[in-house]
Amino acid sequence: MTGRIEIRRRAYLAGAFSLEEEADRALGRLRALPMAETPFAALEPARSLAQAAALDRARARGDALGPLAGALLAHKDMFDREGFSTGFGAHFSRRQPAAGTATVLSRLDAAGQVDLGRLKMSEFAMGPTGHNHHHGMPANPAVPGAITGGSSSGSGAAVAAGHVAAALGSDTGGSIRLPAACNGVVGFKPTQGRAPMDRTMPLGYSQDCVGPLAATVADAQAVLSLIAPLPPAAPKPVPVAELRVGFDTGAFTDGISARMRHALSDLVARLAAMGARPVGLDLAFLSHLGEPANVTAMAEAAAVHADALALAPDSYGPQVRARLVQAAAIPAHAYLRAQQIRRVAHDRLTAEAFGRVDLLLLPTLADTPPQAALLDVGDGPGVDSVVAGLTRLTRPASFLGLPALSLPIARLADGPLSVQVIGPAWADDRVAALALTIETALALPAIQPEPEYA
Amino acid sequence: MTGRIEIRRRAYLAGAFSLEEEADRALGRLRALPMAETPFAALEPARSLAQAAALDRARARGDALGPLAGALLAHKDMFDREGFSTGFGAHFSRRQPAAGTATVLSRLDAAGQVDLGRLKMSEFAMGPTGHNHHHGMPANPAVPGAITGGSSSGSGAAVAAGHVAAALGSDTGGSIRLPAACNGVVGFKPTQGRAPMDRTMPLGYSQDCVGPLAATVADAQAVLSLIAPLPPAAPKPVPVAELRVGFDTGAFTDGISARMRHALSDLVARLAAMGARPVGLDLAFLSHLGEPANVTAMAEAAAVHADALALAPDSYGPQVRARLVQAAAIPAHAYLRAQQIRRVAHDRLTAEAFGRVDLLLLPTLADTPPQAALLDVGDGPGVDSVVAGLTRLTRPASFLGLPALSLPIARLADGPLSVQVIGPAWADDRVAALALTIETALALPAIQPEPEYA
Repeated sequence: MTGRIEIRRRAYLAGAFSLEEEADRALGRLRALPMAETPFAALEPARSLAQAAALDRARARGDALGPLAGALLAHKDMFDREGFSTGFGAHFSRRQPAAGTATVLSRLDAAGQVDLGRLKMSEFAMGPTGHNHHHGMPANPAVPGAITGGSSSGSGAAVAAGHVAAALGSDTGGSIRLPAACNGVVGFKPTQGRAPMDRTMPLGYSQDCVGPLAATVADAQAVLSLIAPLPPAAPKPVPVAELRVGFDTGAFTDGISARMRHALSDLVARLAAMGARPVGLDLAFLSHLGEPANVTAMAEAAAVHADALALAPDSYGPQVRARLVQAAAIPAHAYLRAQQIRRVAHDRLTAEAFGRVDLLLLPTLADTPPQAALLDVGDGPGVDSVVAGLTRLTRPASFLGLPALSLPIARLADGPLSVQVIGPAWADDRVAALALTIETALALPAIQPEPEYA
Repeated sequence: MTGRIEIRRRAYLAGAFSLEEEADRALGRLRALPMAETPFAALEPARSLAQAAALDRARARGDALGPLAGALLAHKDMFDREGFSTGFGAHFSRRQPAAGTATVLSRLDAAGQVDLGRLKMSEFAMGPTGHNHHHGMPANPAVPGAITGGSSSGSGAAVAAGHVAAALGSDTGGSIRLPAACNGVVGFKPTQGRAPMDRTMPLGYSQDCVGPLAATVADAQAVLSLIAPLPPAAPKPVPVAELRVGFDTGAFTDGISARMRHALSDLVARLAAMGARPVGLDLAFLSHLGEPANVTAMAEAAAVHADALALAPDSYGPQVRARLVQAAAIPAHAYLRAQQIRRVAHDRLTAEAFGRVDLLLLPTLADTPPQAALLDVGDGPGVDSVVAGLTRLTRPASFLGLPALSLPIARLADGPLSVQVIGPAWADDRVAALALTIETALALPAIQPEPEYA
């Protein structure tokens, strides 16, 4: 399937629209959105209009244009851009002027993006629901009243609303895949270490990954390939007729809804009809990785935030402050044990799963996205269980550094159902290829209006 | 200089002695030593006599014999040998039967060692003085009443007493170099990661290194080369006439004695007379690495000992238990900060020191070895400062993973003065070559009687 970005690019190259006018119209629409609902944290109008105008001039001159030419993008407010400031989803006093530009932004600029500005996010990327004490939660365009998911809340919502063709997010325990699933779009967390992390806010740095959210698999794959080339030796896609697809028959997916279970079996049956070989695996041991993954992320977050938590505790929202205070008390030996568990679990998954299958298929959430009001627990005692519940299915791929792409496989009245395609390390292209096969086979109605230039 | 091991080997090959008789005589002498003074924790007489007899038979058959043939060795009681048990310097209830043999022991067996048995050590290798709550401290053969140094206390004492030609120890913050310096012998901590660590007791596993103590540099170098081959691309020795030797002109060595300062300057002048270029460096920043290095080691030790500390706290001596309890409270963010400091310090030393010199020359201890009675602080409040004081000069090479060889450069009435030759990572052979040059130039009287077969 041709992605939205490529369709727009062809239309743009054919002269179907002026990018400067297009960006100006988009900025106008975005300015009109209420603060509480918009997925944007800040617009950068002068810069983005200049970026669009420069592309229009290059087109007029007949210059070669990059693969993103014609597309409007915007990114999670955690990537530095020289001359601008980065907000981290935090209190305004924590906003920092950037001394340079993150490589991921530079690469998308060079590829011809028009970057409209900054997208909302959970405070310092801590929190899987999308709630934000300082800035509220952007509206979920796909499911009225549902959480947008976090921490890349604005990225999910902006893509789902059609404001942008794609948006970068970051994922430490599910922060790309969860907002993708909640807003019914595609989210692609690459292999740990694939995307450059310079001038990018750290959270739990041994699990932090930058990756795209987009309307289609092809768009996500295109953006990811631009920010982070794969090494030449990376595993290649396997044709679907030769593909061994693993799914969980054990306790790891015990808690998922009946309709999610049904949608997954349907999908597996459909892939089997295309020649793939479904392999049931007991992945119960993945259930035990949530806690060590969380200990790892929170201990690293405590190291990142130690000085600010001591010097400016009031600049944090109460929930994030409470979680960081708790994180500062995690003993080093618990962190080190978690790293031992990580190595053992990695070896076990490599042997027991990726020794028998090419890819895994797992739900992203247990069901459709929950309603926001139900999960707004503030800094009360329910925080830990809300976090653990939402990230239960996404944490293992983060903890083990594996590529994982979330895509919708059904659109129900109360929201989408999404699955993750998970591969062994560096098999990102193999993951994308199966996701594309699924997307094509299911042909779900688009969540985002098709561009009119197709 | 030809090492003692090679001299014995030639005599053995020439038929000067029966190794079985030699081992039997040695076992007889060792059985007669008082428990409180002997450096041995256990003998393995049947096995070592069989090892010796097999070598005698091989010699009689005219078989090719390995480079250790003719030598008696023994090792710190922390390396597993199948069919035997490992004691770790701990309470007898912690002694563990081994399920296999550590690679370092197998390699020395294959090279023709006769391994007499197990040498005393600080409890679980925790403690730089050599004191041991359960087993006492072996007598220091070089300096009456002085500490043997730890944690490889028995290795230092057994070599200094001439019971063995060499002994393996382990070094996490100075545990090879300190007993070498206290007993007036050579101790060689290799580059982190050079020696295999399987079936070897872990302590602070990101700094743990196995290496030899021996009477001469050539012996230490020979044993180290047998347990741990260097990668082919390892930096090569630099001829002394082209050597840039760095020494500290800053606060790192502020606390050393006047006579140590004098001995060091004499040595530097002597090397300069041989053509080397002395380069004064301000290494004050190394003073700040003791605390993060200790936090790192203790946090990792807490991870290693977490279960046993909870289940069998009374099996630990009071000092070690107190230190492990304290270690269990080290916050993960402090550990992670220490790792950040480690990377920054490594880059700084690489640029500021090894950008300008080939090797560093630093004292191992501030002066001659202190008297044992002065440092026996039990589990009182003085523990931390005794540990910090003794390891002040040895910790940086551990923390940064650098090769460091300690050798005596003077023998005073109250004990030896020793220096460390420290190189960049993997420059172990360059370190050994300078140590050999120093040893040859100084020609100190031997601490261990020369074998009679020379």
